[in-house]
Amino acid sequence: MKSTTCNNLLVSVVADVGGTNTRIALIKDSKIQPDTVKHYANDNFISFDQLLESYLKAEKIDRCAAACIAIASAINGDSATLTNRDWLIDKNAIKRIAACDSVILINDFEALALSLNHIPESDTIRLFEGTASSINTSQAKKIVLGAGTGFNAAQLSNTTHSTIKQPTPEQYNYFVSCAECGHITLPIENAQELKLRDALALKYTRASVERVLSGRGLLQLYQWLCAENQQIEKYTSAAQIALSACNKDDPLTRQAGELFCRFFARVAGDLALAYLPYGGIYLSGGVTRGLTPLLQSSEFIQNFTAKGRQTELMKSFNLYLITSDNTALIGCLAALTYAKEIH
Amino acid sequence: MKSTTCNNLLVSVVADVGGTNTRIALIKDSKIQPDTVKHYANDNFISFDQLLESYLKAEKIDRCAAACIAIASAINGDSATLTNRDWLIDKNAIKRIAACDSVILINDFEALALSLNHIPESDTIRLFEGTASSINTSQAKKIVLGAGTGFNAAQLSNTTHSTIKQPTPEQYNYFVSCAECGHITLPIENAQELKLRDALALKYTRASVERVLSGRGLLQLYQWLCAENQQIEKYTSAAQIALSACNKDDPLTRQAGELFCRFFARVAGDLALAYLPYGGIYLSGGVTRGLTPLLQSSEFIQNFTAKGRQTELMKSFNLYLITSDNTALIGCLAALTYAKEIH
Repeated sequence: MKSTTCNNLLVSVVADVGGTNTRIALIKDSKIQPDTVKHYANDNFISFDQLLESYLKAEKIDRCAAACIAIASAINGDSATLTNRDWLIDKNAIKRIAACDSVILINDFEALALSLNHIPESDTIRLFEGTASSINTSQAKKIVLGAGTGFNAAQLSNTTHSTIKQPTPEQYNYFVSCAECGHITLPIENAQELKLRDALALKYTRASVERVLSGRGLLQLYQWLCAENQQIEKYTSAAQIALSACNKDDPLTRQAGELFCRFFARVAGDLALAYLPYGGIYLSGGVTRGLTPLLQSSEFIQNFTAKGRQTELMKSFNLYLITSDNTALIGCLAALTYAKEIH
Repeated sequence: MKSTTCNNLLVSVVADVGGTNTRIALIKDSKIQPDTVKHYANDNFISFDQLLESYLKAEKIDRCAAACIAIASAINGDSATLTNRDWLIDKNAIKRIAACDSVILINDFEALALSLNHIPESDTIRLFEGTASSINTSQAKKIVLGAGTGFNAAQLSNTTHSTIKQPTPEQYNYFVSCAECGHITLPIENAQELKLRDALALKYTRASVERVLSGRGLLQLYQWLCAENQQIEKYTSAAQIALSACNKDDPLTRQAGELFCRFFARVAGDLALAYLPYGGIYLSGGVTRGLTPLLQSSEFIQNFTAKGRQTELMKSFNLYLITSDNTALIGCLAALTYAKEIH
């Protein structure tokens, strides 16, 4: 089909393809249409192409103006592979299925970062009100940290040349800087944590941040605590452990949840020192959301700000929890909007 | 004096004010004039104003076109204070002394980062040739890590909008992102390192990266090793310890130097994962330079790349040691040039 048939009257499609689930929605008039947001278990499809095709058919969409797909994987030019299920996501296939000339593939953390200027307040819980709130932080750097299948972070910088003193919004250049923070050394501070670190290193040759700060990491913490306390494991999934930890119905799930949050606070604090995100720190991901009450505790903030001489600096950062699972879709919409502005 | 008297025929002055020493030079025809580069011990002056005044007098300079001063301290609007010697460095005072209307104050790591696109090859030693060398890395993100009086890092991003596929140099926006990396949790991985961490925490309430990765940190490492090995301390300064470690003339200074480099490699690796600097990692600072032969060892690279599943990614980064002490002056020149381009 020719590009002339892609006009602004058409809808666009956005999707967030995770390791386990895919979120997908239609965009019309530069807005996500709430009734079109669907969540699918990837296990029910043999490929992303099949999922997209079946979604568009159900929504009665023949052709799209554009598509933006966020993927929990590195993007290699015009395609990406979801390693855990051998799904190849390819621009040309999407162009064919969505009958559309313009397709953007982005990493899921890039999408999350791109969403940070656009998340509705109702999709967040403020965990800590930093002293930076009193100044204008709307254009300051924001970061998103996410614990889900793995752990990672991304920076959203709203930059102008440093010599422009009172920039207009048009003088800003929004851009995202990706990372591989899940592979940073797990930061330990005492003998118990060293014991945990050694147990993880014995299993995985090394103890990185995401060996603790992920769904599997929470399960590892619980299993390690059961072994240490010579208790039989009662739970087999991160979701069950998180639920039990929040309900306080088992001392070992509670300890696992608290240990997870202690490491999360420490890592978030270390990354705040590396990025200085005066625009805010956003915590994201399924495991993160599952531990909401523990993240709202004063211990979490104490562990986050516990950076010695920099404790006052740490108190300047706003800390938010993203409660919605659709945030990457907002980032996909932002990516489509920015692309339109540029071309 | 009026701004009309500041014209391009005049020289500009740049300075890098550290905790201990000040480097200062004159700029003419957009170049640092080599014969004007001077190093001063701050102890010989009662204030930066006195230092600047005496330098300009010695160089027979009545007035300057502009001044850029890099300072090892946070900049608060129009001034900065060197905390260790109570020096107030103030824009208006510099304007008066240099008879100049345009003064830029920047943080020293901001200056180092701004220099990264302009450092002559002769001012660096390549410690590791990463696989990213084969692609065009000139516009990719660069970082500088420095161990001196303290430890810190800064990112230099050369950004365009992510949707511009083959940007021209004019479409790039160079900008620096600062950090407080010295206060990140010291990353430890075994029982010996935990013992060191506990000794540092006992003294300072907490063990941060710069408690090891700084001049005082190297001294601490040596003193701790002497205590652990029940040996009398033979050296009292980081410079002496570094020299002895390089000369291999004392097993304990050697161990201190090796432990310093092990932590430096690990921290540099962790920060590479946080920043993904495909344009290169530059190691800077007096203590760093003092340990050059140890940084050139294969152990350093092994410890840098030891990130489990990400070892191949780690091998993509170019690693350089900055051998010159005048790099921040190059960054000051860059800051003056960028400012001129914008206005």
